[in-house]
Amino acid sequence: MNSVQTIDQKSTLKPVEEEVQEVSNLLREAASLNFPALKYLLQAIIEAGGKRLRPTMAMLAARVPAQTDKIEHEKLLQVAAAVEMLHTASLVHDDTIDEALLRRGTPTLNSALSGGTVILVGDYLFAQSAILISKPGNPRVVKIFAECLATICDGELAQIFSTHHWKQTKEEYYKRIYSKTAVLFATACELGAIMGNGDENTVNKMRRFGHLFGMGFQIIDDIIDFQPTELTGKATGGDLRQGIVTLPTMNFFEKGKPEDVEFVKKLVERKEHSEEEVKQAVELIRASGAFDLAYEEAKDFIVRAKELLEEMPESAAKAQLLQIADYSLAREK
Amino acid sequence: MNSVQTIDQKSTLKPVEEEVQEVSNLLREAASLNFPALKYLLQAIIEAGGKRLRPTMAMLAARVPAQTDKIEHEKLLQVAAAVEMLHTASLVHDDTIDEALLRRGTPTLNSALSGGTVILVGDYLFAQSAILISKPGNPRVVKIFAECLATICDGELAQIFSTHHWKQTKEEYYKRIYSKTAVLFATACELGAIMGNGDENTVNKMRRFGHLFGMGFQIIDDIIDFQPTELTGKATGGDLRQGIVTLPTMNFFEKGKPEDVEFVKKLVERKEHSEEEVKQAVELIRASGAFDLAYEEAKDFIVRAKELLEEMPESAAKAQLLQIADYSLAREK
Repeated sequence: MNSVQTIDQKSTLKPVEEEVQEVSNLLREAASLNFPALKYLLQAIIEAGGKRLRPTMAMLAARVPAQTDKIEHEKLLQVAAAVEMLHTASLVHDDTIDEALLRRGTPTLNSALSGGTVILVGDYLFAQSAILISKPGNPRVVKIFAECLATICDGELAQIFSTHHWKQTKEEYYKRIYSKTAVLFATACELGAIMGNGDENTVNKMRRFGHLFGMGFQIIDDIIDFQPTELTGKATGGDLRQGIVTLPTMNFFEKGKPEDVEFVKKLVERKEHSEEEVKQAVELIRASGAFDLAYEEAKDFIVRAKELLEEMPESAAKAQLLQIADYSLAREK
Repeated sequence: MNSVQTIDQKSTLKPVEEEVQEVSNLLREAASLNFPALKYLLQAIIEAGGKRLRPTMAMLAARVPAQTDKIEHEKLLQVAAAVEMLHTASLVHDDTIDEALLRRGTPTLNSALSGGTVILVGDYLFAQSAILISKPGNPRVVKIFAECLATICDGELAQIFSTHHWKQTKEEYYKRIYSKTAVLFATACELGAIMGNGDENTVNKMRRFGHLFGMGFQIIDDIIDFQPTELTGKATGGDLRQGIVTLPTMNFFEKGKPEDVEFVKKLVERKEHSEEEVKQAVELIRASGAFDLAYEEAKDFIVRAKELLEEMPESAAKAQLLQIADYSLAREK
């Protein structure tokens, strides 16, 4: 991967650290259930989301309009917590669907509970996110949030229906990662800007910033998916194993040697494959330069996101969002 | 079961029939997905909810405050549709959890799709209900709705954790059926009254009416669960098969002969049982008079619900709600 200046994440996020702590408290409160068997697991799931990237961005976005004295602090925290809760709920259902064994390095609920219970735990977290987003009493905020949820669901269905089909356009891929990831960043930034009393132009730009950022973020995620297990805690080529074609694989289909491409296409179509075959496929994709190409596309999204932000008046919040954008490219899990 | 005058459901609901049709249209629109494999199934699920009892009650409740000229028709329809959509979404997840083969007489999504897809379909419907409830732009309505969703999830978790334990108090049972059923009727009536510009006293009473009605409604459902497959389209004693103890079984535990009670308690605790054993258990419960007792309790709830409604000024809507209350007792699936 190209070399990018690594930014210390801790120092980047420091100024909103205390507020993020308050968001975490809200999340903990909202996820406190009365069933002993679930209580511990749920808290573990909540704690595991250590970075709190989405609420952090929502809180920074609220400060971009630069009328920080008018921000209703409590309401902003509720919105930020709702966004993170929605993210967590969709991860829980994702896990159920993927039957993945590891997520964020901790055992998933699935490895400890029956499928039915996990569905309900996900539903419960969705319900809690709905309660959180209803608290500020702002109908516009609720509407944007509900539409975000619908887009996420729609995208997950699209993913299921595209699995094991190698013939997908980049347009379809972009649509999928928008629904899967970028829409929530877009929503976080838009809602933040609304809570920060931004004018329509600022609100739209912040949504667009979150959107472009999220696209780049997901492409990097899709590259990381091919990294060795030692670095990520997940099986190398997890998407490929599930028959999910992402940008690196698409690039490889365009650039790889015909016989190699044929081999990987067949692998995607089948539901069974040996460990050796997956490793071979990952190696072929790596050797083709497909990761570097994907990285350049991710960078392009992030650059466009930053350009939008540059148009905003100078502020500490803006500087931090720019840093986060850089950090997203330098990420190593 | 005690004999109760059967009321023709069609004639009871006629005056709001056109509006219910509009609600159905809203539901159909909201559940229109772009995946051909799902489209048909989803529409079937939506159409299957033929009675539309919850939106009907919401729309009648809106007319009880008797300021019908001030009702914003479109918004009321959206709220009524949101309530039904939430009901449908929770049925879809319930089906996933129960792995039931028949629901409302039509094949469930589970028999046609993989588990993961069904979870997402449920999520998608939840998202649509959130979008619908956000449309009228009323924060109070959204908050009540979100809390209703949380209560439903909480109740479903409670049900999972109480399965296969025969030792449950009636208090626990009442709490469970409130979460499972009554809270949604309470919410439907409360939201209806709010959309009908009811004063606080009316809104509270309508919520309470829906609550009591829902309790009686679920007890009747729990009695119907023991009826022969020919009448219900479901396996006789379905709850018992899943280790779920409902009011009739609780009454039987109090009144039955000790050796019979022991037999049924053991059946509840086990996860495996023969068809013969289930039939025998159902027969023992029937013979003990436990159904009649449960029916009396259901009737008591409905009577209390009706008393609350009697305090309201006379109106066609009130008369219809009273009829629905009577009908709920006379129900045969």
